[in-house]
Amino acid sequence: MDRRSLHTQLPTGVKIYLPDEAARLRGLQERLMGVFRLWGFREVLTPTFEFFDVLAVGTDEALQERMFKFVDRETGRMLALRADVTPQIARIAATRLRDRPKPYRLAYRTNVFRYDEPRVGRQREFYQAGVELLGLDKPEADAEMIAMAIEGFRAAGLSRFQIDVGHVEFVRGALEGLAVERDVERALRDALRRKDRAELERLVGNLRIPVATADLLLALPMLHGRAEVIRRAAGLVQNSRSEQAVLGLAEVHRLLTAYGLADAIMLDLGEVRGFDYYSGVNFEGYVEGFGAELCGGGRYDHLLARFGEPCPATGFAFDVNRLLLALEVHGIELPVRGPEVFIIDFTEDKATALALSRLLRDLGVAVARDIMSRPLAESLAYAREVRAARALVIDAAGLARGEVRVVDLATGHDEVHPLRDLMAAPVRVLEVATGGARA
Amino acid sequence: MDRRSLHTQLPTGVKIYLPDEAARLRGLQERLMGVFRLWGFREVLTPTFEFFDVLAVGTDEALQERMFKFVDRETGRMLALRADVTPQIARIAATRLRDRPKPYRLAYRTNVFRYDEPRVGRQREFYQAGVELLGLDKPEADAEMIAMAIEGFRAAGLSRFQIDVGHVEFVRGALEGLAVERDVERALRDALRRKDRAELERLVGNLRIPVATADLLLALPMLHGRAEVIRRAAGLVQNSRSEQAVLGLAEVHRLLTAYGLADAIMLDLGEVRGFDYYSGVNFEGYVEGFGAELCGGGRYDHLLARFGEPCPATGFAFDVNRLLLALEVHGIELPVRGPEVFIIDFTEDKATALALSRLLRDLGVAVARDIMSRPLAESLAYAREVRAARALVIDAAGLARGEVRVVDLATGHDEVHPLRDLMAAPVRVLEVATGGARA
Repeated sequence: MDRRSLHTQLPTGVKIYLPDEAARLRGLQERLMGVFRLWGFREVLTPTFEFFDVLAVGTDEALQERMFKFVDRETGRMLALRADVTPQIARIAATRLRDRPKPYRLAYRTNVFRYDEPRVGRQREFYQAGVELLGLDKPEADAEMIAMAIEGFRAAGLSRFQIDVGHVEFVRGALEGLAVERDVERALRDALRRKDRAELERLVGNLRIPVATADLLLALPMLHGRAEVIRRAAGLVQNSRSEQAVLGLAEVHRLLTAYGLADAIMLDLGEVRGFDYYSGVNFEGYVEGFGAELCGGGRYDHLLARFGEPCPATGFAFDVNRLLLALEVHGIELPVRGPEVFIIDFTEDKATALALSRLLRDLGVAVARDIMSRPLAESLAYAREVRAARALVIDAAGLARGEVRVVDLATGHDEVHPLRDLMAAPVRVLEVATGGARA
Repeated sequence: MDRRSLHTQLPTGVKIYLPDEAARLRGLQERLMGVFRLWGFREVLTPTFEFFDVLAVGTDEALQERMFKFVDRETGRMLALRADVTPQIARIAATRLRDRPKPYRLAYRTNVFRYDEPRVGRQREFYQAGVELLGLDKPEADAEMIAMAIEGFRAAGLSRFQIDVGHVEFVRGALEGLAVERDVERALRDALRRKDRAELERLVGNLRIPVATADLLLALPMLHGRAEVIRRAAGLVQNSRSEQAVLGLAEVHRLLTAYGLADAIMLDLGEVRGFDYYSGVNFEGYVEGFGAELCGGGRYDHLLARFGEPCPATGFAFDVNRLLLALEVHGIELPVRGPEVFIIDFTEDKATALALSRLLRDLGVAVARDIMSRPLAESLAYAREVRAARALVIDAAGLARGEVRVVDLATGHDEVHPLRDLMAAPVRVLEVATGGARA
């Protein structure tokens, strides 16, 4: 391996965000956090790594295997990078916050780390923005999560999205009474996950179970649709666990309809995806033309008990990287801005550039200066490269006439203005010169 | 170890930021990034971990030893958590950005990881906000960094700060001509770092060197002060490396004086701190009453060559955690805000709460709802706990009269308003009810 390739090589699944990409990521994070704030959620920050055994208490086994682990030099104990923020926040709620009045409305925007095979929009280090609502067992809390997911999609600029809402207890109730071997149950779950009806029929055909139970299992992949799914499901179930799930889902659906959000909702009672710690209503959000889920979450009423403090809870998170990709697929652009003004000063002492940049920054206008000496065309190309909105060009001849030139870098339009006006009312002059664009 | 203590235990040097602390950290990051944006710098994001051998190319050996390292499951190569962002950005500039017009003005706000013994305001995972200015060898670039550091202190709300500015080549020039053993040079550097004049005298006394050289070495700890330091240093040096350093520092000092910033500047030519990769003017920022440096940086003209692309560069970073601590020491408070409105609805159907919260959120007002049923006093205590600005109290008796109650949670002041007014002009009513505080 030669020296250059060594320098440029990154591990699989990590990424450098250059200014335009970083601006899109930060802008989208900020929009999602804006929604979370509007709903009264407050950000917390969790450690990037913790003791593996502590993280493992709240984490699915399958995810534990995909964690980045390393040995703590000091204690010899195993550390791991965070792979899921929910268990961290559940532990914080069950310990540090235990004695504070509930509910806790907590938000986060952070990176998580998973040894996944790279796939659609998914890195091994990727960014999530999510919330946890802890201390409420009411359906209003579930509805609040789904309503916020919808607001999140809207804030991102998307309109053609859909939230698939299910209830993990429905399938669990259907499988529970079968009393089958673990591997048969796993095969059934896999077939449901893939919506593989042929395989499901084969597996169900091998079971010695009542016809009604078989009918329920075979119907699971079709329990997907609008409100009528609840009626169909209610007609099929004969166990109280699944019945309770139908009632729970029906109540959340009723609230979402009252909120005017029913159009965005699809019900799916045959769904088996999501973390093992889910215990009730759960959901995933999709956008037209993009195969992977962009957000997901659900109720996890038994997770906090693992940390010694039983407490109902629900939450969800957006996959910010995938959401960026979905926006790109839909041709939705996020603003990418450089400095508002780029000053090019050809005079020897640069005194005008210095005075103007100080004046503009004091007014909150972002200014970069071209400290390099190069031809005007190159300076203007550079100004466009760093996404500046406009350039101020200062030279000795213009200064002698008391004038500077303002170039709108988007249109190329260019105007000469008296330096005196610019110093007296810079924001107004810049707005005029660039047709009322941002100053 | 019992189960509870396991759950609450964190590795040394990592930290949970609950909402108030997280709001302070994010608020301070945002102020610093605001300064960076005003100067035309654009954020980049670097990977949290990379291959250790790649990171090591740009990193001081002492820092390499303090990195968190682990084995990549896939390749068997060593990975490491980032301990310093500058070498990552230097590599990006030398590779990914190589063909773009210079200079690059890049900013970052991120966490870094070092196996340090916990000390004043320093965790093993801590937060930095910094900039790199790559592609400029002019003293204007050095002055820009120092001016921005000063603006950063001001944006944080601090006024009694000081920037110690030095030039790493000055001491290097003084030591170079001695032709002493490596361990003697290290001892001299240590004595200088500690400003230990007795030890320095002992070490210099053992050297066979000209009197002028001995005088220079013994004078180093005293080359600290205002502009006169330059004159004193110029009178002492007899090697061209140190002479060039004095000239370079003098030019940067001249620019800072022209910018009107001389009052905040102390010169220090006896300084030997900072990273090995520094090559020119470097600086550290201090605040009165706080012993540790809060920001630091300097020129590193030879670092990019290690990645195959020679390019002058300078940069600096704030230690955000220490800066938070310094603000606390000075009693400077950063705003910590919860939702603007907290709605408590005692009616059965909560329809008013729902309609009001939707209306307010559409206007950009942050609203949380109390979904729990509890006595009013407890709901108000909870609203204060989550830092809400005001509460809206809705009950059946009030609604029958068409009224809701608005409670200013800071003052306890409480007013009844017609629901109709609140629905028609909510922001105005809320402002009146809470004496013009934020709505």
